Amino acid sequence: MKIYHSTPKQDGFFMPAEYAPHEGCLMIWPERGDSWQYGAFPARKAFAEVASAIAESEKVTVCASFEQYDTAREMLPAKIRVVEMASDDSWARDYAPVFVLNRETGIRRGIDFSFNAWGGLEDGLYFPWDKDNRMAKKLCDLYENDCYDAQDFVLEGGSIHVDGEGTAMTTESCLLSRGRNPELSKEEIEEKLKQYLNVEKVLWLPYGIYQDETNGHIDNICAFTSPGEAVLAWTEDQNDPQYAMSEADYEYLLSVTDARGRKLKIHKLPLPAPVTMKEEECEGLLHMDGKPTRTPGERLAASYVNFYISNQAVIVPAFHDPADLEAQRILKELFPGRELIPVYARNILIGGGNIHCITQQIPAVQKLDN
Amino acid sequence: MKIYHSTPKQDGFFMPAEYAPHEGCLMIWPERGDSWQYGAFPARKAFAEVASAIAESEKVTVCASFEQYDTAREMLPAKIRVVEMASDDSWARDYAPVFVLNRETGIRRGIDFSFNAWGGLEDGLYFPWDKDNRMAKKLCDLYENDCYDAQDFVLEGGSIHVDGEGTAMTTESCLLSRGRNPELSKEEIEEKLKQYLNVEKVLWLPYGIYQDETNGHIDNICAFTSPGEAVLAWTEDQNDPQYAMSEADYEYLLSVTDARGRKLKIHKLPLPAPVTMKEEECEGLLHMDGKPTRTPGERLAASYVNFYISNQAVIVPAFHDPADLEAQRILKELFPGRELIPVYARNILIGGGNIHCITQQIPAVQKLDN
Repeated sequence: MKIYHSTPKQDGFFMPAEYAPHEGCLMIWPERGDSWQYGAFPARKAFAEVASAIAESEKVTVCASFEQYDTAREMLPAKIRVVEMASDDSWARDYAPVFVLNRETGIRRGIDFSFNAWGGLEDGLYFPWDKDNRMAKKLCDLYENDCYDAQDFVLEGGSIHVDGEGTAMTTESCLLSRGRNPELSKEEIEEKLKQYLNVEKVLWLPYGIYQDETNGHIDNICAFTSPGEAVLAWTEDQNDPQYAMSEADYEYLLSVTDARGRKLKIHKLPLPAPVTMKEEECEGLLHMDGKPTRTPGERLAASYVNFYISNQAVIVPAFHDPADLEAQRILKELFPGRELIPVYARNILIGGGNIHCITQQIPAVQKLDN
Repeated sequence: MKIYHSTPKQDGFFMPAEYAPHEGCLMIWPERGDSWQYGAFPARKAFAEVASAIAESEKVTVCASFEQYDTAREMLPAKIRVVEMASDDSWARDYAPVFVLNRETGIRRGIDFSFNAWGGLEDGLYFPWDKDNRMAKKLCDLYENDCYDAQDFVLEGGSIHVDGEGTAMTTESCLLSRGRNPELSKEEIEEKLKQYLNVEKVLWLPYGIYQDETNGHIDNICAFTSPGEAVLAWTEDQNDPQYAMSEADYEYLLSVTDARGRKLKIHKLPLPAPVTMKEEECEGLLHMDGKPTRTPGERLAASYVNFYISNQAVIVPAFHDPADLEAQRILKELFPGRELIPVYARNILIGGGNIHCITQQIPAVQKLDN
């Protein structure tokens, strides 16, 4: 594996959209007891269900610690590969490599952004995070892909989306947070995104999902479903603090055009009724630094936008809520060629994220101009 | 990865000879301070030299611990892949999978033999050995090869050689040792070899190299160089305890035929003058269980037979001994299509083995009947 200190844009590489063809998907096996209740047993079942759904149409590799390798191997179908790799937690979206392709050569490389647990010592969620931060490089090596060293820039994969046609979107609440790149201006951060993702335009939504501990990752609030179209998490309840946030994002999205000059078509995706922590769930979580990580009644950042687009399916969180079916209906219409696979995701959500957060696609190596 | 409880012979798989085409080679990065002097720094240089020589004509993957990944990545050329994997020590030959191929389908599988550190609690060399023993399965998974579960049979890859045409060879001193499979008779062990390697005939040399801590692995005393031909480590010094051992092996080899009914052509490969531990080398080794692992003047099991056959080269140990060149000359004649690459191997030998011991070939996946 070679390490590059240039940028993908300089070298003619770009990040494909999630709905472009994948070679496969990366996931990380959950283990830590202060993120995942009851020794992570319920979370592992949910992760295995997600992995199995994705593995129906692409190759899935799951990274597991030395201690968890055998458990992962036993709980996952034979066609899924398990590789040993140390991590601090299980958020492949945020610290597995963002992969970029060169249209002419069909060569794939990965980007090793800096990861600091969503805010470092400012407002990060755990310490230390060095194992997570070292995964991207190792995963590039595993796939025999060369790697861009972007360790001077803090970025999680869940804080960006691209349409594959020159547009990225992110949230101001996250990318301008004090815990990430406080020394960079908004313009400088935008230039980093343009260089690393090779896009011409960055859309800055103001907010993410209420109570989202990532400072409001884009991947929980809004996602491209095709060039020029996106879904936005939405509530009709004006008393919900989410209402004003989604409303502000909606207004913003209607006011802008994408890199190709298109007005965006925004589809409102309903939110489930607020999902809150139960007492017995809190009891199943180890404390962190002597303190509980969740309290009974605490609202979690539940959203159907946190889906994963596999080669032949959309794997979407379900919460046993009446809105589940409506969300699935809307997504089915927006992804006509793909099967909708709902996975009951409460035991992923408790960890602080959802299906999109625990996955990272590996774009297929192919000459895209053919 | 699927786990099979049948045997390769039952399923039409066999172990190809080392001189058959390789996809690549597996190695494990050295780290433990009671095996490798001075914090394993000198050993790592030697391992890197071996890996680089092999990587000239096949793909090399080096397994490194989480702690050593960055060091390995920095010391190894970019074209070598480094993957994270925990181990107890660095003997890929002995506990990486023995790979087998199916001639008709071209499918490759691995065998997960049981490993107990060359003798377990009877006369094994370290405790515990569970990380080593768990590598074969994980390496099969890494290569997306299915795996034979042979955990009921203790076998190190260094204790067997095959000619690829139905013959295996091993040593009685090792395979009949009390620390491996004491509940099995010689006939039962032979049947295991026939089932797992898919050979018709097993040749049992009486001895290995004097002072070889593995109970005398075959791969330090004798190796096939082509079907019907082998090299045997040899000394002309009748006062050397090795003399009687090599002599007994030679007499045995002249008395037998291989699976095809051929008399074997045995080429004597000279041994270097006895290589013994220096005081400053012993001082650089951590103690094990409160005791030194080597003592000054201790003779090491140096042998040129411990070479690795890569696709286009033979990587052979050198000891800065006058016999180095003679050994290289003989091997060059026996491998006319391959380059001879000597690597100064004292810092591998101190760990207890040599170039063959720290490598394991991955046979190329191909339909061999074409």
